[in-house]
Amino acid sequence: MNKIEVCLTPELIHQFELEGKIVVVVDIFRATSCMVAGMATGVKAIHPVAEVNECVSLGADGKIMAGERGGIKVEGFDIGNSPFDYMSDQCCGKEVAVTTTNGTLAIVKSIGAEEILIGAFLNLSAIQKHIAQSKKDVIVHCAGWKGTVNLEDTLFAGALINALEKTHSIEGDPGIIAKSLYDHHKNDLTKATQASSHAQRLSNFGVEKDLEFCMKQDEFDVVPIFENGSISNFN
Amino acid sequence: MNKIEVCLTPELIHQFELEGKIVVVVDIFRATSCMVAGMATGVKAIHPVAEVNECVSLGADGKIMAGERGGIKVEGFDIGNSPFDYMSDQCCGKEVAVTTTNGTLAIVKSIGAEEILIGAFLNLSAIQKHIAQSKKDVIVHCAGWKGTVNLEDTLFAGALINALEKTHSIEGDPGIIAKSLYDHHKNDLTKATQASSHAQRLSNFGVEKDLEFCMKQDEFDVVPIFENGSISNFN
Repeated sequence: MNKIEVCLTPELIHQFELEGKIVVVVDIFRATSCMVAGMATGVKAIHPVAEVNECVSLGADGKIMAGERGGIKVEGFDIGNSPFDYMSDQCCGKEVAVTTTNGTLAIVKSIGAEEILIGAFLNLSAIQKHIAQSKKDVIVHCAGWKGTVNLEDTLFAGALINALEKTHSIEGDPGIIAKSLYDHHKNDLTKATQASSHAQRLSNFGVEKDLEFCMKQDEFDVVPIFENGSISNFN
Repeated sequence: MNKIEVCLTPELIHQFELEGKIVVVVDIFRATSCMVAGMATGVKAIHPVAEVNECVSLGADGKIMAGERGGIKVEGFDIGNSPFDYMSDQCCGKEVAVTTTNGTLAIVKSIGAEEILIGAFLNLSAIQKHIAQSKKDVIVHCAGWKGTVNLEDTLFAGALINALEKTHSIEGDPGIIAKSLYDHHKNDLTKATQASSHAQRLSNFGVEKDLEFCMKQDEFDVVPIFENGSISNFN
């Protein structure tokens, strides 16, 4: 059996050995859910950047500018941080430059791994199949929120551990905790996440429809991979 | 209602505002379990220090020297890191200087809080009663293992949240995760911890009896408190 570990926040990623492993970056609400939705519906590539001005530079180069700050679309940007934005005609066939805080940080801090995959409930089975075939050890890298541990990303880690139980055994207590969390809530994951602090913050912005969509499992059969600064579909 | 938060490892304590709050430091296997057992059975005071040589200095001053490195009693020390050592005649009426890695770090990093309490399953109800009367917000500070998140300390956090449900509401997702973990395993906490990485490490040292004892609930009615560099009983 290969091994699967869980890093609960980017602030703890230095505790993990990345080399030779597959890292699955997850930011359920909403960065990686957006990326998966976009890459499954015709977006050509996604460039995650940390700062608004980097995004603007890429926008001048013809890319769709995406991102939010404090829950609101950045002024002058083409789209915000909703998966539905990424699935629109506006993005189809285009490259997207996105500024996220938590998601970009988790991706950048995963550099050094053998593969950096973009995971969400939306493509859980596609990620599971890819990993099961790879015969490599895995780290689920939860983006969390401003460095803190969050519920929805930890739940995804538990769900992926569950899906990989035939090929990957849990290494370390965070994985045991994530799996227990998933087992405890597996009959109603959406309800569980409604209690999360992030869902409560976002509910102020009328994005309940987004949150419900982000919790849908296996809507898309894509495995987005981050290589050389941008995300494309693995093939 | 007051609030209760959970810090899953000392590496994340900077995310929390300590001022005015009660911090409960927990290191179930085995530092805080030892401290509670000792303080309940006649130890006069406990001085937690980080380094072996600090412990030796205090030993020269007549204090019992306690501690382990890599699971084995430090050479020349009086006692190791078993709660049974702390409950022995050798320690009764004496002061103990103890070098621990995870436990001491969590205590030192809690300085700045209104009160720093030493918690374990062994004194769970005593801690709960003290806090319920205090009308203060609480942070459970899990010592973890070498900076990583561990199962047994997170389970304790969930158990304390459960015990305080009439006076303290959960603030933040780590608290929700800890409570779910506790709810999932509450019918057999000992069995749950046997799967933890720490229990597996320690099982190499024949300390199963210690681990079983550390999971006993409400053996002692004491509230050890850390003030001015040492631990005494609150009264």
